[in-house]
Amino acid sequence: MTVPLHYLGPQGSFTHQAALEASRLIDDAGECVAEPNVTAIFDAVGERRGWGVIAWENNVEGYVVPNLDALIDADDVAGFARIGVDISFDALVRHDHTELTAICAHPHGLAQCTGFIADRNLAVRPTASNAAACRDITDTQIALAPSVCADIYGLDVMARSVQDFSGGRTEFLVLAPRDDVRDQLDRIRKTDDRDFESIVAFILLNTGPGVLANLLDVLRYAGLNMTSFISRPIKGNAGTYSFIATFDAAPWQPQFKAALRQVLTHGDWVKTLAVYPRRERPNPPVSAWMLPQGGIHIDDATTRNDDHESDRELLWK
Amino acid sequence: MTVPLHYLGPQGSFTHQAALEASRLIDDAGECVAEPNVTAIFDAVGERRGWGVIAWENNVEGYVVPNLDALIDADDVAGFARIGVDISFDALVRHDHTELTAICAHPHGLAQCTGFIADRNLAVRPTASNAAACRDITDTQIALAPSVCADIYGLDVMARSVQDFSGGRTEFLVLAPRDDVRDQLDRIRKTDDRDFESIVAFILLNTGPGVLANLLDVLRYAGLNMTSFISRPIKGNAGTYSFIATFDAAPWQPQFKAALRQVLTHGDWVKTLAVYPRRERPNPPVSAWMLPQGGIHIDDATTRNDDHESDRELLWK
Repeated sequence: MTVPLHYLGPQGSFTHQAALEASRLIDDAGECVAEPNVTAIFDAVGERRGWGVIAWENNVEGYVVPNLDALIDADDVAGFARIGVDISFDALVRHDHTELTAICAHPHGLAQCTGFIADRNLAVRPTASNAAACRDITDTQIALAPSVCADIYGLDVMARSVQDFSGGRTEFLVLAPRDDVRDQLDRIRKTDDRDFESIVAFILLNTGPGVLANLLDVLRYAGLNMTSFISRPIKGNAGTYSFIATFDAAPWQPQFKAALRQVLTHGDWVKTLAVYPRRERPNPPVSAWMLPQGGIHIDDATTRNDDHESDRELLWK
Repeated sequence: MTVPLHYLGPQGSFTHQAALEASRLIDDAGECVAEPNVTAIFDAVGERRGWGVIAWENNVEGYVVPNLDALIDADDVAGFARIGVDISFDALVRHDHTELTAICAHPHGLAQCTGFIADRNLAVRPTASNAAACRDITDTQIALAPSVCADIYGLDVMARSVQDFSGGRTEFLVLAPRDDVRDQLDRIRKTDDRDFESIVAFILLNTGPGVLANLLDVLRYAGLNMTSFISRPIKGNAGTYSFIATFDAAPWQPQFKAALRQVLTHGDWVKTLAVYPRRERPNPPVSAWMLPQGGIHIDDATTRNDDHESDRELLWK
């Protein structure tokens, strides 16, 4: 028997595309079930009616913070797989279309395909979702939507990847009750020789200057490679913070486990949010040519080191 | 002569509300000028046609990452004021309205006022922006929009603050060429005995485990209080990261300046993104009752310390 995957609907959203991909990649995952909001996804997982798929991070917009906060707050829910989806819009039309005079999509979709719209001099019709644009399309309209929508709504592909910029990508987490997460991870550990990544949330109960550096010292002495780190206000408690870190390691590795134990012994709060097989990621050295405009960098042989330049860039005078 | 403030239009956006507030608070700030996108705002500041107002951080959605990336990349632009705006929607109608049967707003606005819509059984009409909803309103429609829109579009307020949840707040930065930033900060330092906050971007050119902890050690030894910290991929260079930190201090304070100099001497890249008068913020101690559900915390006297519990919450077995 397979486990249903609950995702943020409507059908044909990018999250639906991620859920279909998860269903293909994970043996026990079955049908995809659209939910009206993220709370309903966490409820479905918490009540053991299935697993969930939530957007986690986008390479342009950053973390999907409401989902991150929901996972920190959730009881007995964790992630065990991470799925990436390229953000790409196809221009879809009805098979019986006549002259095409208007274009429909969620305002985000419209904003990402301005070149395509301007070239064709189309009237713009915002919709509540890209899927709604496909569902309600007339014979004079073009809908902008993820490629999965052509099949779902029986539309023809007029043009593929019509967004202004390519390279947009959103990462999703597949969520399950924590027992299921351990079963899934055990199975991978038994059959494959895979490396893992982990996302861990920390709340430091002893506050004051240096507490964050102390935490990071513990993690450094454990030799852990951290690939992302952010602070987040604790919901409803202004002035208090949690820290969310992503590591190139699994929490059962001895040095990682020892580091977590040390943080706990110190009296702080720890929760593992997700453990999943390691993704291939480039790890290039940073070179001076990659640096943003402005700023100060002392190895730079040009005029960057003069006092005027550093006063301007650092505002430290 | 006053300096125009360029903000992300259309008129009546939350950014417009922030720009009006900035214009009221900052002596030299003058008229508010709507721009079609954030690039146009940075262009206006870079070409010395005025100052800019950009959304920076929201207490629900987190950082406005595209704006953060744009400020890191911008040449000769920095922030010198931080303005908070409560995210609140009013229900606006035409003075000559008849029976009200539909409600119009950007899909984000519609999603934040579901209770108000459901209570009145209204048909939902998504628009490209909340301002567009006000501009194009018919006599049977209600528009959901920031309160500033009633005046701008000559509409009557049917109900105030109709959003499902209150407490949403977005913080904005006021941007200027760096010379102007220094002039503005000098003036505040001369006339008021104000504390300051700073936002600084770091790129570590020597990579490897522990580099981040090394950076934070330098900041800790300087006694600096950090209120926010995030890592961000460097745009167009997958696998490389910048770190953005917010401090309760000004970069001209001797210990902060010494810490920045030490980071520079180490060969890393530094850029001050903004310096502005300190906001009042609560700074409560974290207590166990504030903690999210689940997770592990050793001082907790209940069953939290048993092996089963920690195995489940940390996934470390």
